[in-house]
Amino acid sequence: MIRPNIAILGATGAVGQEFIKLIEERNFPFNQLKLLASSRSAGAEITVKGQSYRVEEATSNSFTDIDIALFAGGKITKTLAPEAVKQGAIVIDNSSAFRMDKNVPLVIPEINAEDIHWHKGLIANPNCSTIIMLMALKPIYNLSRINRIIVSTYQAVSGAGKQAIDELIHECQAYLMGEQYKPQILPSASLPKHYPIAFNLIPQIDAFVEEGYTKEEMKMVNETHKILHDFQIGITATTIRVPVLRSHAESIYIETDNMLSMQQVKEALQNFPGVAVMDNTEEMIYPMPIDTSNKDEIMVGRIRPDLYYKNGINLWVSGDQIRKGAALNALQIAEYILAHNMLKNKRSI
Amino acid sequence: MIRPNIAILGATGAVGQEFIKLIEERNFPFNQLKLLASSRSAGAEITVKGQSYRVEEATSNSFTDIDIALFAGGKITKTLAPEAVKQGAIVIDNSSAFRMDKNVPLVIPEINAEDIHWHKGLIANPNCSTIIMLMALKPIYNLSRINRIIVSTYQAVSGAGKQAIDELIHECQAYLMGEQYKPQILPSASLPKHYPIAFNLIPQIDAFVEEGYTKEEMKMVNETHKILHDFQIGITATTIRVPVLRSHAESIYIETDNMLSMQQVKEALQNFPGVAVMDNTEEMIYPMPIDTSNKDEIMVGRIRPDLYYKNGINLWVSGDQIRKGAALNALQIAEYILAHNMLKNKRSI
Repeated sequence: MIRPNIAILGATGAVGQEFIKLIEERNFPFNQLKLLASSRSAGAEITVKGQSYRVEEATSNSFTDIDIALFAGGKITKTLAPEAVKQGAIVIDNSSAFRMDKNVPLVIPEINAEDIHWHKGLIANPNCSTIIMLMALKPIYNLSRINRIIVSTYQAVSGAGKQAIDELIHECQAYLMGEQYKPQILPSASLPKHYPIAFNLIPQIDAFVEEGYTKEEMKMVNETHKILHDFQIGITATTIRVPVLRSHAESIYIETDNMLSMQQVKEALQNFPGVAVMDNTEEMIYPMPIDTSNKDEIMVGRIRPDLYYKNGINLWVSGDQIRKGAALNALQIAEYILAHNMLKNKRSI
Repeated sequence: MIRPNIAILGATGAVGQEFIKLIEERNFPFNQLKLLASSRSAGAEITVKGQSYRVEEATSNSFTDIDIALFAGGKITKTLAPEAVKQGAIVIDNSSAFRMDKNVPLVIPEINAEDIHWHKGLIANPNCSTIIMLMALKPIYNLSRINRIIVSTYQAVSGAGKQAIDELIHECQAYLMGEQYKPQILPSASLPKHYPIAFNLIPQIDAFVEEGYTKEEMKMVNETHKILHDFQIGITATTIRVPVLRSHAESIYIETDNMLSMQQVKEALQNFPGVAVMDNTEEMIYPMPIDTSNKDEIMVGRIRPDLYYKNGINLWVSGDQIRKGAALNALQIAEYILAHNMLKNKRSI
């Protein structure tokens, strides 16, 4: 059995922590494990499978002998990822730095695993909102091409990292105690202004880029085109931060080339790996973030036809942003690489 | 000056309390004031403009000598509203009981005040989500007919009444203390199952009715057609409860018959009474529920063109659900009646 040497960059963050949890849970095989982080977090001790690991500061020399490097975001990615590739590692990168690079496959394994095969050392993990949306749309796309997507998101604070999760909790506590709390993280730590998220909605995720859209909204457009290899789909997105801890939800409207019955749509979704249908209005069953948190599946419900446009369909989707939206998807790419014997240096025990 | 005798039915509820606040704030003229509620709330003392009023139990005999009866919901509406009209009152009803009745005008004063003139004693106040949406759409509709609306809502718990507001607060408290809390109200007290709303999203508002849609979603469709006198608009809605206390928000996508510039759209919105534009991406200015709570205006931002369909426009709208979404709109109808001398029995001092 192949046991790669793996490195996790950003091991102390929300996605890094999830990588460790999933490696234990899925019994992901490894020979050596290296936990890396910025100098600020270096030195921490983390237990993985009963063994204690010291978090090391990530430098350009961190990747000698590493087969698979799981990158969990951070500005350092842009410089360290090419270094790691040079040193022989396959980098699976959760940041947005290389996603639209023509030399980098952008992969959701259930959807376009075949793209993994042409990688040149770096494989990009898509944006969380894109992954959650496409897991619900690909089964339908397989029945009939989708020519149009209008999506509004309801995104958990986990998408902005551990500090944003803490901020929501602290703001709620302060509100209930009648105290003041000065927001410092959301919408994004790097932006000049910060707004409260407790009992509020922030209609901005990431910076504004073009024609009034945010980076997050354009990621959903551009990454969808690249993953589906279909650049003709008309996509428009509105991404909103909501006071939820870790599962995203999305209200998705699509138009298909051919008319589909809701029965066909439900069956296609049910039969797709990684997707679960929760749709029984009589029993009040539909996906909610509290149900999808810490679950692997993307859950789809409220499946219903547009009553005015015969090829229009509404869906309500929820999925764990840190799990399938980030760490799980990246680890599935790593599992695919192992299963298909794609490692350059095959280590085994 | 005309000073009507007024009655408020449901005076102790969230909307009833807002009626009282607005009557004071807007210096709404009245001769006598009668506060009515169910037997459960009767007997309470409420101070209005420095004078104490005892809440009386609402019965079919409560409306003698009442000129304007402001009905703030409740099942009792269906029987009491016709009684009040028989006794000579003009009823402005916030419930959904009579909204689609052909003999009842359904009015947002800034949009279709002319419909007030053909009333037969009963005037219906639209659903809160419909009011908030149409305040943002009518200025655009005036520039070019809108032929299509795809809307996803982010609705505050206030829409389910005072008990739902308390439930969100109690659930947050319990969560932060690590305690259990059994939800009893949301999605709706009358439904067989209840789900937590704290740090969650509930994709159901009101009961399910047809083709997988909820009553709330169909209200947004049917009431929009009636208010705009345009039954050809293709409308599809997804209504979601979010952990926000009292302002709703909506992600609205429209298609217009003619292509509009964003400058035209912004100017039309700015010039429309009751609407404020909050749209400056450079300064990170956009509507958020914490800004619109306790405000009269419906606020619109994130105004941007669909990059794929030239007549498509995205908007992000927020407004106080209890204020313009309910009590304020109803009181504006009453103000219009006074301003146009439409009272049957004109009392004056």
